[in-house]
Amino acid sequence: MKQSSHRLDFTSRGKGLLEVTQPIAEWAAAQGVETGLLTVFCRHTSASLLIQENAAPDVRTDLEAFFSRLVPEDFAYRHDDEGPDDMPAHIRTALTQTQLSIPLFDGHLALGTWQGIYLFEHRARAHRRTLALHLMGE
Amino acid sequence: MKQSSHRLDFTSRGKGLLEVTQPIAEWAAAQGVETGLLTVFCRHTSASLLIQENAAPDVRTDLEAFFSRLVPEDFAYRHDDEGPDDMPAHIRTALTQTQLSIPLFDGHLALGTWQGIYLFEHRARAHRRTLALHLMGE
Amino acid sequence: MKQSSHRLDFTSRGKGLLEVTQPIAEWAAAQGVETGLLTVFCRHTSASLLIQENAAPDVRTDLEAFFSRLVPEDFAYRHDDEGPDDMPAHIRTALTQTQLSIPLFDGHLALGTWQGIYLFEHRARAHRRTLALHLMGE
Repeated sequence: MKQSSHRLDFTSRGKGLLEVTQPIAEWAAAQGVETGLLTVFCRHTSASLLIQENAAPDVRTDLEAFFSRLVPEDFAYRHDDEGPDDMPAHIRTALTQTQLSIPLFDGHLALGTWQGIYLFEHRARAHRRTLALHLMGE
Repeated sequence: MKQSSHRLDFTSRGKGLLEVTQPIAEWAAAQGVETGLLTVFCRHTSASLLIQENAAPDVRTDLEAFFSRLVPEDFAYRHDDEGPDDMPAHIRTALTQTQLSIPLFDGHLALGTWQGIYLFEHRARAHRRTLALHLMGE
Repeated sequence: MKQSSHRLDFTSRGKGLLEVTQPIAEWAAAQGVETGLLTVFCRHTSASLLIQENAAPDVRTDLEAFFSRLVPEDFAYRHDDEGPDDMPAHIRTALTQTQLSIPLFDGHLALGTWQGIYLFEHRARAHRRTLALHLMGE
């Protein structure tokens, strides 16, 4: 049994879903583990993680639109000194995931056919985001 | 330290919560691990996982009703070619969990007394759903 | 490779976020693991876990207020025999996390600078809450 750890940096493009499946899957596959558990951890409180459909781009557009409606910017939040998109970003993070663990079977992530891993940026402007990766297995 | 992996298939009965605690707990117990970590991963983007109360059935009815109200079908989603329940299913999945990890203590899942593991089906019709299981421990 | 397990008890103060980062981080650091994976599991269905901003207290106030609005108590839930705050507590739990796994790098949790671990109490009154901890690594 062995383990590996890594950090991956991404630059988001403002609010919305950025696919990160490929660099994560490539790093995992390169560790020489047949069976194991990969954990992806987002080190931020205004960006999060989602497993979502990787086929129709409209799904990502609708997801972003839904969260924008559910958590409006034009509300009298107490925490408003970092801009109108900051408190909604924290709430959107709370409603989604900060961490995902995905089993590795036969050397590959056990993702379903239509599943991709997404970094969900909740701030209006582009941000540099870091994911911490951890893999354990053999 | 050793690990085991498995796939469990279920047929959902349309929208709502399907309890899957027993087959998961039985598989975990059969692996001969005293202390460890069990990961359950749902390989779909229109069904998800929840830990919820296993006593009152009304809790499941109210949960399903809440998510139906929160994510209405009668909305002008861009992604609508797979039926009115498809985009809401992706959103409901985003709002709940695709993966759960549960510690194993003394050979048993460390679930609380009132906790059950549920597959949350978000499509209107019954679907075949696969959970990937991974257990690590000794 | 080794593993450790532990239980931590907390008394919440009614609805809202209670920071639990320090006792969790201290226990993890005391296990003598350099690289590994810590899992925190909340053994309840009316309290949950969140990674959130650990700086501005207003963020916690706004989060609690958002969830109170999103999941109102004055609704005709079928499950109402444990008080008006019980069914909303189950729904708020479903919308947040029951489990968090955090990688350990260089002997420390790989949390971002502004990230804290919070127990999110969803019942109106104070409750005794138990978190199950599991650490694996070396």
